Amino acid sequence: MSVASPVVPESHTIEVLDHGFVRLDEAMASDLSVVNAARVSFARRKEEMDDSDHGLIRFLLRQSHGTPFEHNAFRFHIRAPIFIAREWFRHRIGSFNEFSMRYAKATDEFYVPDAEDVRTQVGKPGAYSFEQVEPEVAETTREELRAVYETAYAAYERLVEMGVARELARAVMPVGSYTEFYWTVNARSLMNFVSLRAAETAQREIRRYADACERFLAEEMPVTYQAFVDAGRVAP
Amino acid sequence: MSVASPVVPESHTIEVLDHGFVRLDEAMASDLSVVNAARVSFARRKEEMDDSDHGLIRFLLRQSHGTPFEHNAFRFHIRAPIFIAREWFRHRIGSFNEFSMRYAKATDEFYVPDAEDVRTQVGKPGAYSFEQVEPEVAETTREELRAVYETAYAAYERLVEMGVARELARAVMPVGSYTEFYWTVNARSLMNFVSLRAAETAQREIRRYADACERFLAEEMPVTYQAFVDAGRVAP
Amino acid sequence: MSVASPVVPESHTIEVLDHGFVRLDEAMASDLSVVNAARVSFARRKEEMDDSDHGLIRFLLRQSHGTPFEHNAFRFHIRAPIFIAREWFRHRIGSFNEFSMRYAKATDEFYVPDAEDVRTQVGKPGAYSFEQVEPEVAETTREELRAVYETAYAAYERLVEMGVARELARAVMPVGSYTEFYWTVNARSLMNFVSLRAAETAQREIRRYADACERFLAEEMPVTYQAFVDAGRVAP
Amino acid sequence: MSVASPVVPESHTIEVLDHGFVRLDEAMASDLSVVNAARVSFARRKEEMDDSDHGLIRFLLRQSHGTPFEHNAFRFHIRAPIFIAREWFRHRIGSFNEFSMRYAKATDEFYVPDAEDVRTQVGKPGAYSFEQVEPEVAETTREELRAVYETAYAAYERLVEMGVARELARAVMPVGSYTEFYWTVNARSLMNFVSLRAAETAQREIRRYADACERFLAEEMPVTYQAFVDAGRVAP
Repeated sequence: MSVASPVVPESHTIEVLDHGFVRLDEAMASDLSVVNAARVSFARRKEEMDDSDHGLIRFLLRQSHGTPFEHNAFRFHIRAPIFIAREWFRHRIGSFNEFSMRYAKATDEFYVPDAEDVRTQVGKPGAYSFEQVEPEVAETTREELRAVYETAYAAYERLVEMGVARELARAVMPVGSYTEFYWTVNARSLMNFVSLRAAETAQREIRRYADACERFLAEEMPVTYQAFVDAGRVAP
Repeated sequence: MSVASPVVPESHTIEVLDHGFVRLDEAMASDLSVVNAARVSFARRKEEMDDSDHGLIRFLLRQSHGTPFEHNAFRFHIRAPIFIAREWFRHRIGSFNEFSMRYAKATDEFYVPDAEDVRTQVGKPGAYSFEQVEPEVAETTREELRAVYETAYAAYERLVEMGVARELARAVMPVGSYTEFYWTVNARSLMNFVSLRAAETAQREIRRYADACERFLAEEMPVTYQAFVDAGRVAP
Repeated sequence: MSVASPVVPESHTIEVLDHGFVRLDEAMASDLSVVNAARVSFARRKEEMDDSDHGLIRFLLRQSHGTPFEHNAFRFHIRAPIFIAREWFRHRIGSFNEFSMRYAKATDEFYVPDAEDVRTQVGKPGAYSFEQVEPEVAETTREELRAVYETAYAAYERLVEMGVARELARAVMPVGSYTEFYWTVNARSLMNFVSLRAAETAQREIRRYADACERFLAEEMPVTYQAFVDAGRVAP
Repeated sequence: MSVASPVVPESHTIEVLDHGFVRLDEAMASDLSVVNAARVSFARRKEEMDDSDHGLIRFLLRQSHGTPFEHNAFRFHIRAPIFIAREWFRHRIGSFNEFSMRYAKATDEFYVPDAEDVRTQVGKPGAYSFEQVEPEVAETTREELRAVYETAYAAYERLVEMGVARELARAVMPVGSYTEFYWTVNARSLMNFVSLRAAETAQREIRRYADACERFLAEEMPVTYQAFVDAGRVAP
């Protein structure tokens, strides 16, 4: 699993949380593809971007002309806790394949937040803010999580050893356990993901993942990304 | 939550597993809508089905003309373990809203299979078959599950009481815990769901849910349903 | 084709342009469904709307929480010129079945604008404005259109009579000729359609259709509609 | 418009009909991506295909496991008559941007079939077969088409010269006129397109386009393509 992909150097991996990562497996993405998709309206095509194209991309984003941003693809390989994956898979415009606890044995990796990420919520649903807890509370929390994870995984292993079907034994696995998946998505849907999941209102853990995805977007499609930021991070 | 819906009588609930259900909240579905959607190709429309329309529906299904089966909607209210919901949410043609452990406190209901549903897997991935385990193994399994659920939920409650944000405390919750959600879907996508999830290769627990959905399909669109069965349960 | 539907009275038809209409064939839509889809986050359900729910719907719209607006369906029956239908079918979240010139003989109905709708464009692509032309230009335009339509349809009829396959003979049919189709769509996608197609920048002819769709939305989901208008007609 | 793309040599263009083409603008596609997407179920990844992977791809196709075929992208640039484009745009899983007769002046290129493609239909809707017509009928048909095209285009030009808005003047344009568009699609959706549009029941003209797309699929993903053919050209 740590084998380097033939296309993208291993450096295309951003580590997230204690055991997770976002790896860009492959991309077919360029600002030029946006420009050419838009200019087909006029039956025009270009070999290279020029300055007027920067303006065109900004115009398209501001005016919510979304389709020209769909003619590209990012294939990500992601490792994240199940509770993060569950939010991720709500994004229907894109493709997923995931690790299966029906077919394979669950891993023993679980999410334990750093002490400074243990937090309390203040305010009302839809408008929470979060504050760091006292160090002892943070430490107790980390211990409680670890203890449940160990208990659950030990039971899981006993069940599997007894011959219980993995698809059933998995019922004890906590949503803090890590899963992994491939996600292929175009820039329009990716911007939508980033606008919702790298936002103030998103859960801190998925924000870290969305931030990582955002860096790959910025790298592959810098003009589009800048226009997205300038437009207040609202997806077209 | 046990309040009767104004549109559909409470009898439109099918109980599934130990704490779950599929409830048809509302439907706009009829075989006539399939016929009229197909006949718009010829600019024809009918007030009532006749025998030739049964043949038309069978023809459409057999020939994989899927779009006429999309002009309808089923809104389901479902209660199921998280590991079932995770498979369910992979179906992208449809709409979901789900209970949130970020906003609300997790319930203390968890899936414990009946003794005869505790099983072992035989064979290779993609071609498993399942056999019932010995009674003692079944009982031990049920006890192991209950024990993990209790440990996890007790830790969850302690964390919430200590003020830890619910979105973080939920990390300990096992995927055997129950969630609930609304699912709105058209008959074409519902047939696809049933063909995959009420199949031999599907996990037994989701099959029970798919069977329940199937009964509602049969009730609302009997001619379509019969044609689907006759076509070998392959969705158009 | 003029047969009344069993579900919706014929009064549910809004005439548009010279030979077109938008007819609401059937709907499963209510503001309550939005509220209940949103409240499942907290495992709550209601029988009837109250004032707090109006606030909830406004909140959801303003915050771009779109999914609760998807648990409903509008089935429209529409008659429109092909050049309008072509813009309509770009909306991918929804279901279409259309009249087929492969299977049936083309109708002889074509769009001729009223004199006051004959217009000239001023300004640059993406930022056109339109001004009414002189009465003589308007009349000449209407005559030119009618003349081409007649020439084309006469040729079409000759080809069909000679035995040429309809799928080939249709090549002469102008995009001003009328087609008809069913469109089933949820309120979220319908609001997106209205926000783009009932807008200043949309072509006048499709705006008339979008206005008609909008009236049905307002009738079926008045609280949602009011919130949509108050949010500046931006779809969630 | 005849400028070579920086990524794909001009040889990646297949001419179709009298003025059309399918050009593969860029692709991110490989059989290996299918294998890796499938093997993430077991948390395994490979650098290169081996023989067992051929079997895996065949298995996935036969069993209708479709999602592993979605982690790739083909960006096509296409030029086709409007009546073909209309069928094409019914395929909702994919992205389109098209030439606009609102923004740009219509071209004067129109589809005139070769004599041997002028045909008559025999049989009933849904089960037509086609036979070549007599040479004189073929020639008359070609003349009729050309005559309507000329009449329509001359009227179009007069209207535009008179200052009538292009979006209105286009109403006279026949559906035999050429348009062009970008289409970005994954292999699963592309196989679905090919299975429906390169089929016996499809219109001859779109079959030629589907055949061209199929050649690019075969070139980029040979193992997948062979498995698709062996499975009877049924998309997973």
